[in-house]
Amino acid sequence: MANPTAGFLVIGDEILSGRTKDVNVGYLAEQLTRAAIDLKEVRIVDDNHQNIMAAVQALSQRWDHVFTSGGIGPTHDDITADAIAAAFDTPIDVREDARALMAAHYQKAGVELNQARLRMARIPDGASLIVNPVSFAPGFSLKNVHVMAGVPSVFQAMVDMVVPELKGGKALISRTLKIDRAEGDIAGPLATIASAFPAVSIGSYPFHRAGRYGSNVVCRCSDRPLLDRVMAELKSTFPEGQEQ
Amino acid sequence: MANPTAGFLVIGDEILSGRTKDVNVGYLAEQLTRAAIDLKEVRIVDDNHQNIMAAVQALSQRWDHVFTSGGIGPTHDDITADAIAAAFDTPIDVREDARALMAAHYQKAGVELNQARLRMARIPDGASLIVNPVSFAPGFSLKNVHVMAGVPSVFQAMVDMVVPELKGGKALISRTLKIDRAEGDIAGPLATIASAFPAVSIGSYPFHRAGRYGSNVVCRCSDRPLLDRVMAELKSTFPEGQEQ
Repeated sequence: MANPTAGFLVIGDEILSGRTKDVNVGYLAEQLTRAAIDLKEVRIVDDNHQNIMAAVQALSQRWDHVFTSGGIGPTHDDITADAIAAAFDTPIDVREDARALMAAHYQKAGVELNQARLRMARIPDGASLIVNPVSFAPGFSLKNVHVMAGVPSVFQAMVDMVVPELKGGKALISRTLKIDRAEGDIAGPLATIASAFPAVSIGSYPFHRAGRYGSNVVCRCSDRPLLDRVMAELKSTFPEGQEQ
Repeated sequence: MANPTAGFLVIGDEILSGRTKDVNVGYLAEQLTRAAIDLKEVRIVDDNHQNIMAAVQALSQRWDHVFTSGGIGPTHDDITADAIAAAFDTPIDVREDARALMAAHYQKAGVELNQARLRMARIPDGASLIVNPVSFAPGFSLKNVHVMAGVPSVFQAMVDMVVPELKGGKALISRTLKIDRAEGDIAGPLATIASAFPAVSIGSYPFHRAGRYGSNVVCRCSDRPLLDRVMAELKSTFPEGQEQ
């Protein structure tokens, strides 16, 4: 049976302008791979209600799970929660459970829970909260969409809350053969091996080090004996290869 | 008049699995911002013919310019050129100009231009070549789509070839006020200023340093006197702010 699939929507003008370099894609990708959920598509859109809505609808229909990052803070440009609610035609308002959670934290910290911060307690009806152990304003899950913060430390904490609860597939095992030859030299025999093992995903990733070209050949599948066979075949075809 | 727009398609299983961390989005975003072209959407898809085709078609219809990275090497998993040709229903084969360009380079380097490397000379009819000063296998531009390598050093060289040739809009000027207060404290007055200056894009980006929360308020527009006015307003509202 195929693994569950996922899509990821990154929301934020600051990523598209180059001002902020995204690191959330890499983190989520690693955690999903570990959980045997296949990340199939990422989209990055600007802080625009219609664009967020359309992207969430498309990803939610297509993939088993959707994650979003960004746009759930207290300022006027934080419009994600409302766009997600609109995407599912769901009412949204300040919700008592989210408000109480934030009030408890802010009281301890001596910070005022003002109108702006209350914006972060706007949660669509029927959504469940995602606890935020870093800065306390929660994320939420609505249908198959998990809405999380963009700040990497908070995003990572929320991913660590949500992903382990999802049902994964059969974990992929991966083995890598590093070959000190250019991709153009190995591509022919590599294609022959790849077509002999259609159930194994075989990727080739070039590198360039100390003036020489080389290739990392990465094999992935969930069947260990099959993976062993393809690696044996690769090693006999490319005896100079070194397993990483 | 609004700036020209752009979309970016990143192609590669290795990004979606987390094995490779993308750095091309950040580079392209910076160069487009510098050229006054607005990057509006990024998609990352896997090495799948149908998914590449569909994403290229969607982005090409929606935005003025489209860039792609990845999947134009010599190995069996390099399927981008064929998918782009299919997306525009254009024939594709080894093209003499690309072959000659590569042959000249490989001859000098003493490398065989074998069948696998010839795959990199597959260029759709009517496309123009993008010179690759790093490793010589060219990219290409077909309609409004610029097809480039995924390896960052090659991608960057190709971006530097293509972007300066495109007609940009009016350059955005940006000014940043760093305020050592949490977003939740400044969000109310900030929203008032943002709605008073609808032509200025005002973004707020939280940071956390040495145990304290702060906010970088970034204002962007192409009209310098207007930008000066909004900054004066911000500074008078948040006198503790420091311009960056």
